[in-house]
Amino acid sequence: MMATSRFFENLDALFNPETVAVIGASDNPAKLGYHVMKSLTEGGFRGTIVPVNPGAATVMGIESYPAIEGYGGSVELAVMVLPSKAVPGVMDECIRKGVRGVVLITAGFKEIDDPRGGELQADLSRVATRAELPVIGPNTFGVVNLNLSLNASFTPEFSLLRKGGVSLVSQSGGISHLMGFMAMEREVGMSKIVGLGNRLNVDFADMYSYLMSDPDTTVIALYLEGLDDPRKLMEAAKEHRGRKPVVAYKTGRAGSGDRASLSHTGSMAGRHEIYEGALKQAGILPLESAESLLDTARALAMCPLPKGSRVAILSGQAGPGMAACDLCEAHGLEVAVFQPGTQRVINDLLPPLALRTNPVDMGPAWYNALAIEGIIRAVMADEHVDGLIILMMYASANRGAPAGIAPLLLEWKQRKPVVSCFVSPQGIWDQDIRIMEGGQALVNCPSPERAALVMASLWECSKMMRYWTEEDRK
Amino acid sequence: MMATSRFFENLDALFNPETVAVIGASDNPAKLGYHVMKSLTEGGFRGTIVPVNPGAATVMGIESYPAIEGYGGSVELAVMVLPSKAVPGVMDECIRKGVRGVVLITAGFKEIDDPRGGELQADLSRVATRAELPVIGPNTFGVVNLNLSLNASFTPEFSLLRKGGVSLVSQSGGISHLMGFMAMEREVGMSKIVGLGNRLNVDFADMYSYLMSDPDTTVIALYLEGLDDPRKLMEAAKEHRGRKPVVAYKTGRAGSGDRASLSHTGSMAGRHEIYEGALKQAGILPLESAESLLDTARALAMCPLPKGSRVAILSGQAGPGMAACDLCEAHGLEVAVFQPGTQRVINDLLPPLALRTNPVDMGPAWYNALAIEGIIRAVMADEHVDGLIILMMYASANRGAPAGIAPLLLEWKQRKPVVSCFVSPQGIWDQDIRIMEGGQALVNCPSPERAALVMASLWECSKMMRYWTEEDRK
Repeated sequence: MMATSRFFENLDALFNPETVAVIGASDNPAKLGYHVMKSLTEGGFRGTIVPVNPGAATVMGIESYPAIEGYGGSVELAVMVLPSKAVPGVMDECIRKGVRGVVLITAGFKEIDDPRGGELQADLSRVATRAELPVIGPNTFGVVNLNLSLNASFTPEFSLLRKGGVSLVSQSGGISHLMGFMAMEREVGMSKIVGLGNRLNVDFADMYSYLMSDPDTTVIALYLEGLDDPRKLMEAAKEHRGRKPVVAYKTGRAGSGDRASLSHTGSMAGRHEIYEGALKQAGILPLESAESLLDTARALAMCPLPKGSRVAILSGQAGPGMAACDLCEAHGLEVAVFQPGTQRVINDLLPPLALRTNPVDMGPAWYNALAIEGIIRAVMADEHVDGLIILMMYASANRGAPAGIAPLLLEWKQRKPVVSCFVSPQGIWDQDIRIMEGGQALVNCPSPERAALVMASLWECSKMMRYWTEEDRK
Repeated sequence: MMATSRFFENLDALFNPETVAVIGASDNPAKLGYHVMKSLTEGGFRGTIVPVNPGAATVMGIESYPAIEGYGGSVELAVMVLPSKAVPGVMDECIRKGVRGVVLITAGFKEIDDPRGGELQADLSRVATRAELPVIGPNTFGVVNLNLSLNASFTPEFSLLRKGGVSLVSQSGGISHLMGFMAMEREVGMSKIVGLGNRLNVDFADMYSYLMSDPDTTVIALYLEGLDDPRKLMEAAKEHRGRKPVVAYKTGRAGSGDRASLSHTGSMAGRHEIYEGALKQAGILPLESAESLLDTARALAMCPLPKGSRVAILSGQAGPGMAACDLCEAHGLEVAVFQPGTQRVINDLLPPLALRTNPVDMGPAWYNALAIEGIIRAVMADEHVDGLIILMMYASANRGAPAGIAPLLLEWKQRKPVVSCFVSPQGIWDQDIRIMEGGQALVNCPSPERAALVMASLWECSKMMRYWTEEDRK
């Protein structure tokens, strides 16, 4: 069925509640209801938290109710952490109470061997959908909306994430946690993290449409295993293609993976190649790993898109430049041929080493901040260059290099994308990089290869978005 | 020419000196001679350091000599940080002094545009080789021997590395620094790091033979761009193939990469595919990135090799298991079919979720340490399983899981390789992982995909080594 506009208003309320009820809230750390309460209370959520547990007067010191209907105020979001058998009755209570959305963490539905799990899910889905009540899950870790400091998941540590523009919609709690922890380490700004689980009545297509209209979300990242109704996602995506960058990582290409997917969230993964083609048609860029999904989403949130495929590779040492060069050429980028004026500037600034064309080995200019600045300035302004890859490995003698070029890059404010790989022993360059990334001067990657791949993905995304924008305007 | 046995004795003395002279030592931080002195003095080298500088009575408080011949004792290693013009004269002095080996950091030889650079290098090479004097460089950052706390490089931070069995021989200083910093972060135990630079008379083939006989080196990692004499490396490698695991990463496959390689260290990179085949023939496993080179070398130093291609994937969450599954099947591993007894044990220990075959989703057993232990024990003992991939993403509720299974894995001591991906927010599982890795219970990777790739490379290496051991015995 098509989701109604009332359904989408409710979905918006689910992500932006004033009051959250936790049905199955607990003080016992051996219960998921404890961890959900911990996430909500420690995450800084400024709305009202209503524990529901017939056996407790308080949970974590907060007044508890035997049932949601016992609470006097209105409740926008109900998080359920209950045995599966209890869910239908509680769902009815939520509908009577006028709850706007449910996060159903409970497992034991479509994903289990027993056919009664599937039946239970189908029944619930009918009831919820008739009530225009969006339900995230079942069999999910929850949802997080960092813009609201709302951590409605069983993992309190998600609240450690930095606020930002990347929203992740995932079919796997494991991959969501992995991506979340990688995002913490790399200080990626996140907006929403949504574990779809078994997708009772909120699927990728619904989240896709919702996030396209969510002003806090600038980049959408999807983790897919299989889809019950691939066409529904593709239709939703096509409607919005070209509007925001969307990237996806899909597993389940292997034979055993297909079996696993069927079991895991109850749908076939299907042939990998078919999905890849369909995703691109829908304006979604397919990527090859969780690391790549995060690297790319992060860069899309921080960088302008390149207007062409021609990159300059400016390296503090030759080897990393060559590694980046290999990857660029293998992934659809061109190593730019500089304009004669640019090349003259570089030749004047570097000693007669042969590596002055692209890639440029700036090694001999380590001690000469003005030379490095001059090279970067000339290359930035070169109309034959659509993006810059800057690579530099720390050595005792070039300690000051990132701080030296930061003002220039900050001044440029990325009129073209700058993807870098500055690597030092922990602590030495961290602050310099943070300043440059914070000022949107560049996006830094942990290896030259990953920097090159990120630039290639930026270009792929740029081409795709431009193509669909123009195509759909016809 | 063939290197003589005297040449190799000298090479050994170069890596294990009692006295190191730094010719061009300086107190001025704007000189590389300062950074080399800093590396040696701060690195904990217990031999004698002899600064040589005609303009200084002391350097860093150590008595300095106007020329190496002024020093009364014997000198095994001379590190030169001089203008290129001064090198020939000083090289003669070193030979007269009976120096056993030279690390020539100075640039300005074969790598420069000016043909005089190439001539100077050729002349020097003749002189050094006639004297059976091995020279690492020119145009190198230096060499490091962690077993001796010898940091004869211009980067003092290399001394922060942990001692261990991996030796890296690299054509690029940049890649050596990158790998070194990655190794620090991941606590990889290193033996030697050697920047070959322009390879005056010590090439990959020489280092290969030397490291094969070096008892401290258990795994050899090579970073290659181009070789002047590929046949020489291949011959040396073939002589030793099957004896120690050797892995290589080669760049310069792209057209512009070839140009860059020619410039960078003066040799053509050549066709990538030809190299790949030749490397395998020589018993060297080619890899695709600096990260993969480090991941694999690290695992080879810590793990037994798998005896077959059949892996078990035990996952705390389904998604990461599927991601690993995809990569395993794409890279020559089989997802094992468990023996019936093993499957029965798993079925008894896990609730009736379909994901109990391989991959196994242990999610429902998070709270049940005995169940997880039982599954791992059964799979370990299964004769249809050659290696284990264990994946677990932290969630508040499974905090104790790694500590829970550590004793079992430590007891097993890796009769089969165990490659894991335990990921948590920083600090939570770090100590548990360190204990397991320290006790050789497993090798941990930052993502499920990289764990699967590491297992695939272990199997490739195992096959290759066994093949050549058997083949060469015929």
